[in-house]
Amino acid sequence: MNALFASDNVTSACPEVMDAVIAANSGIAESYGDDQWSSRLQTKLSEIFETDVIVFPAVTGTAANALALSVLTPVFGKIYCHELSHINTDECGAPEFFTGGAKLIPMRSSNGRIDASDLSQTIRGAGNVHVPQPASVSITQSCETGTVYQIDEIMAISKTAHNHGLSVHMDGARFANAIASLGVSPAEMTWKSGVDVLTLGGTKNGCLAAEVIVFFKPELVGDFPFLHKRSGQLLSKMRFISSQLEAYLSDDVWLRNAGHANAMAKILSEGLDAFSNIELAYPTQSNEVFVHLSRELIDYLNNAGYDINEEELDGQAVRFVTAWNSELKDVDRLLTVIKQYT
Amino acid sequence: MNALFASDNVTSACPEVMDAVIAANSGIAESYGDDQWSSRLQTKLSEIFETDVIVFPAVTGTAANALALSVLTPVFGKIYCHELSHINTDECGAPEFFTGGAKLIPMRSSNGRIDASDLSQTIRGAGNVHVPQPASVSITQSCETGTVYQIDEIMAISKTAHNHGLSVHMDGARFANAIASLGVSPAEMTWKSGVDVLTLGGTKNGCLAAEVIVFFKPELVGDFPFLHKRSGQLLSKMRFISSQLEAYLSDDVWLRNAGHANAMAKILSEGLDAFSNIELAYPTQSNEVFVHLSRELIDYLNNAGYDINEEELDGQAVRFVTAWNSELKDVDRLLTVIKQYT
Amino acid sequence: MNALFASDNVTSACPEVMDAVIAANSGIAESYGDDQWSSRLQTKLSEIFETDVIVFPAVTGTAANALALSVLTPVFGKIYCHELSHINTDECGAPEFFTGGAKLIPMRSSNGRIDASDLSQTIRGAGNVHVPQPASVSITQSCETGTVYQIDEIMAISKTAHNHGLSVHMDGARFANAIASLGVSPAEMTWKSGVDVLTLGGTKNGCLAAEVIVFFKPELVGDFPFLHKRSGQLLSKMRFISSQLEAYLSDDVWLRNAGHANAMAKILSEGLDAFSNIELAYPTQSNEVFVHLSRELIDYLNNAGYDINEEELDGQAVRFVTAWNSELKDVDRLLTVIKQYT
Amino acid sequence: MNALFASDNVTSACPEVMDAVIAANSGIAESYGDDQWSSRLQTKLSEIFETDVIVFPAVTGTAANALALSVLTPVFGKIYCHELSHINTDECGAPEFFTGGAKLIPMRSSNGRIDASDLSQTIRGAGNVHVPQPASVSITQSCETGTVYQIDEIMAISKTAHNHGLSVHMDGARFANAIASLGVSPAEMTWKSGVDVLTLGGTKNGCLAAEVIVFFKPELVGDFPFLHKRSGQLLSKMRFISSQLEAYLSDDVWLRNAGHANAMAKILSEGLDAFSNIELAYPTQSNEVFVHLSRELIDYLNNAGYDINEEELDGQAVRFVTAWNSELKDVDRLLTVIKQYT
Repeated sequence: MNALFASDNVTSACPEVMDAVIAANSGIAESYGDDQWSSRLQTKLSEIFETDVIVFPAVTGTAANALALSVLTPVFGKIYCHELSHINTDECGAPEFFTGGAKLIPMRSSNGRIDASDLSQTIRGAGNVHVPQPASVSITQSCETGTVYQIDEIMAISKTAHNHGLSVHMDGARFANAIASLGVSPAEMTWKSGVDVLTLGGTKNGCLAAEVIVFFKPELVGDFPFLHKRSGQLLSKMRFISSQLEAYLSDDVWLRNAGHANAMAKILSEGLDAFSNIELAYPTQSNEVFVHLSRELIDYLNNAGYDINEEELDGQAVRFVTAWNSELKDVDRLLTVIKQYT
Repeated sequence: MNALFASDNVTSACPEVMDAVIAANSGIAESYGDDQWSSRLQTKLSEIFETDVIVFPAVTGTAANALALSVLTPVFGKIYCHELSHINTDECGAPEFFTGGAKLIPMRSSNGRIDASDLSQTIRGAGNVHVPQPASVSITQSCETGTVYQIDEIMAISKTAHNHGLSVHMDGARFANAIASLGVSPAEMTWKSGVDVLTLGGTKNGCLAAEVIVFFKPELVGDFPFLHKRSGQLLSKMRFISSQLEAYLSDDVWLRNAGHANAMAKILSEGLDAFSNIELAYPTQSNEVFVHLSRELIDYLNNAGYDINEEELDGQAVRFVTAWNSELKDVDRLLTVIKQYT
Repeated sequence: MNALFASDNVTSACPEVMDAVIAANSGIAESYGDDQWSSRLQTKLSEIFETDVIVFPAVTGTAANALALSVLTPVFGKIYCHELSHINTDECGAPEFFTGGAKLIPMRSSNGRIDASDLSQTIRGAGNVHVPQPASVSITQSCETGTVYQIDEIMAISKTAHNHGLSVHMDGARFANAIASLGVSPAEMTWKSGVDVLTLGGTKNGCLAAEVIVFFKPELVGDFPFLHKRSGQLLSKMRFISSQLEAYLSDDVWLRNAGHANAMAKILSEGLDAFSNIELAYPTQSNEVFVHLSRELIDYLNNAGYDINEEELDGQAVRFVTAWNSELKDVDRLLTVIKQYT
Repeated sequence: MNALFASDNVTSACPEVMDAVIAANSGIAESYGDDQWSSRLQTKLSEIFETDVIVFPAVTGTAANALALSVLTPVFGKIYCHELSHINTDECGAPEFFTGGAKLIPMRSSNGRIDASDLSQTIRGAGNVHVPQPASVSITQSCETGTVYQIDEIMAISKTAHNHGLSVHMDGARFANAIASLGVSPAEMTWKSGVDVLTLGGTKNGCLAAEVIVFFKPELVGDFPFLHKRSGQLLSKMRFISSQLEAYLSDDVWLRNAGHANAMAKILSEGLDAFSNIELAYPTQSNEVFVHLSRELIDYLNNAGYDINEEELDGQAVRFVTAWNSELKDVDRLLTVIKQYT
């Protein structure tokens, strides 16, 4: 089977990141994040976001999201999210685990993104002791349908959330793809638009295993260091995670990687859309392409050696994902194989 | 500051492991452990333990221990352990978190090891609905005082545990050091002595970040795959962890690394013990050396550039740890520096 | 303010129940449920349900529901329920707390009841390690819209659930009202229709504070006694709860109480429906009447001394609840007050 | 079997309390604690404690203790307690459950009471991210060995706790017995001695099922109302709990009940101590008498119809408990039966 376009987590790490890991493997270094790589990462992210941030690395997006939510949401709290969001569908209950039992409120919409006015109407029960308490909103950028929230959408959501006393979390597993897509600054897409805490992903876009939780407000950090340790995400040899992120975020590696993935997705998307028997499920705005394929075409592609991913989005569409190292020839070949079917 | 002997987690990764990570960074690989490295790791560990085992990698010892205990212990269960054990003192409550509230029962002894007859007398309350229920025993091998459980000690503990219906977990963060110290087979030190689940550490002994939970009884695995995912320890690019472990466990790398660390510790221990004003706190049986030092000597060493670790064992002794790459010249230098004080 | 029809929990206890509590207050009795009242309750419920049941009293419906769900659902499990269900909206996250983080999947429908075919389409992800696992279904009888599930609806839901390996829980906070409404046997409405565990309420229908969890399958009891104790619901003087339930379930007290409440609700419902400016939100099938009232009429009634409950069902309708001791004159008076407005 | 002296929870409720419950069973009352009985209870307790307190009723001591601790202790926190304390040995892990995984640190002493200087030496690790964080101290008054903390002992413990930033919880399941024993005011024994939160028990001393959590510092209440509801301890018909407590705390009922129980215990204790073959395990300072009995004498008493309680204190002594309604003739009879053996 060829998992080529099945996900962006089937890819290898990019050379800049791997070189940084190799370089970090030298000599004695303080453990548990008291190393120079972790220290520099903090500085690097403060530069990138144009404000002083407090950051904590983690090794999976699941842990990073759940940890971030756990410090924003009490045990009896509600987390508003889209029903297709990764935290709701693909983390085996990690948010509920890490928060000690918070409740995810799945919101619906046809495009996979939360709408601020829907949110406003859905938030209820604050102060009523019988009702799980509204606590936070989590949005995914770029989101699970491969589209991206526009800046004004994020601002509207944040404003609604803050008006109700809720915190705003952004699941940025594909944050770089969204930045590359929108062409805005990281600051604009986050704290300047009201995001309080970001989980910024590296793994899908060129790292081995590296995510980082970014706090834009020091007062929200609270007990996070203890929650971090308690969850098994405070690595003793943290330099091997921080060094990945440092290289990833330097010299525009992350944006270049994401830009390439997005460009390949665009080509693939346009190619697929040109077939009369294929319909795009969503506009392609990042590195994920969702299409409606006939059962026969899916079987054909699986027989042709592709590992067609039908599991995303509750099976409502087929997903193709491009990555930092997707090659044009592989995109072309896929389109050619489909053409031969048609 | 020179963290040289402060811990074994300040060291770099060994070349065999790093080479394996570099080699694993090639091409497309199935994610979430469905890759060839993870598959071969399962086979490798079955060979090493001379029985079919079921294994799950993790990235920290804290997570590995807590996950293992969570599948052996109900939410209202008791975990018997030594009061100095890492799970009791150094994981910020991770076992309680992952188990959903199990209670660690701290046992005492002068050498840091649980005694089977003490255990037998401490286990009580089974079936009494008011009493947290005896569920599991956790021992650390080599243990937190740098000594190792003898095979007959493990057997006696396991027998007592099993007679009471309890499972036996071994925290093997320094498993290789214990094997190298005792000169027995991995099978003898685990399932042949009654151990049910092992967390085998790689990080302290030459890996970047790699631990593995080893089930010797398939019937104990239960819901583990879901708990594993839910805890954020199922890495998408698992090949980068499994490849570390595969290399670590091949060609006796792990045993050679551990044997070297043990040998350096022995030299250091004998050197320290030769000073009239230094007393060994425990016999040195692995790669940790515990000594009683005067306040003045500690200050002197800190001034001399060492980062003296006084925090272990509730501050009852000072710890020096050797590692896979400790150099004889550094041991000699430390002894020389102390001699100059004396 | 007159909380008369605001809820059925504003009422006193019925004389039969109070007499039983007084009678139970005599002499020495074994504690923690090892008393004769608790023993007889087990027998009584086995008779009522025409099968051997295993039962555990509790003092709140919130605890009873959450405890029942906690033994049916793993920490990473999914509980399918209606979005208006009490467990989802009115228990401040107790199900998530008691289960250790299970996820409630809120289903929608216009009548407040789960539909079996919707359920069938919603259950997904079994065996997929990324997805919270389908584990149980919870239905409320009579349900939060004041309607009742028909026997064939329960059967269809149970069949769907069991086909997918899920357990079926019935929240019977108003179980007696549903029995009185449908005129079927308790056995028919539960285990004969596939219900696995029932929480049968007494508090709203004539008890002081008494609920009971009824297991129809001994193999599902599992660790329940420990969960029961650990949650603080195993009362030391359990006789004072069990005696309430014994009297409640004897001599048709519960059914007579519920029948009366239902009859009063029917009269109230018909009276309200006769006004041209009032519309029933749901058919009245138990002791809850939901209507759409104008803002002006609500204000008028509040001014007239009623404590109008607008908080149920996410504010989509106004609720009037009758109880075991509602008086016809009070129903008539309410209708007269409204008539004067109209 | 005669459970006469097995525990104080085998007794009935006292007439004043039962009369209050009967009286409370009248008419409509606001639910969930918004009733006049609950309101008056708040006032009554503020009078008794000579300061404004905020109180929440609960139905079991297990729930009351666990709830109180859950608002004082973070999920990664440590609760210092005696190893014989009820929260450590007899609540099936409720404190761990309600706190979300806090760790109880069992302290030892021969008399069952925590010593302030031991506490001072045991508190460690504050701010160290690896170590569960010191958060609260819990003492039982009167304690599990039947002795009572003297005022200066409580003050010393509180001072130590507060110096380290910890909160002080008092498990007052037998609070009245301690007050009656010491002859001090409730204020002196609690907030004037540094206690922050008290769980005051009624069940063992004349109530049906009634405990109350008393906050002496409003700023510690925090999210308690939500935790209270979420745990299933916020009763809909709260008047039936609050009315018990109101009667219990009025007209010195609680102190008279406790004084009687203490007096009976004193007579029993002196009678037992007079036998040459019986040795008091602890001085009798409240309503619990602990003695060392020979195996033969225990068997003899069981055969004579007593239900000898050997399970308390890890089986280290046999317990006899007197209650508000213990009769002198029953004490005399027990002594006579023993005399016949001797």
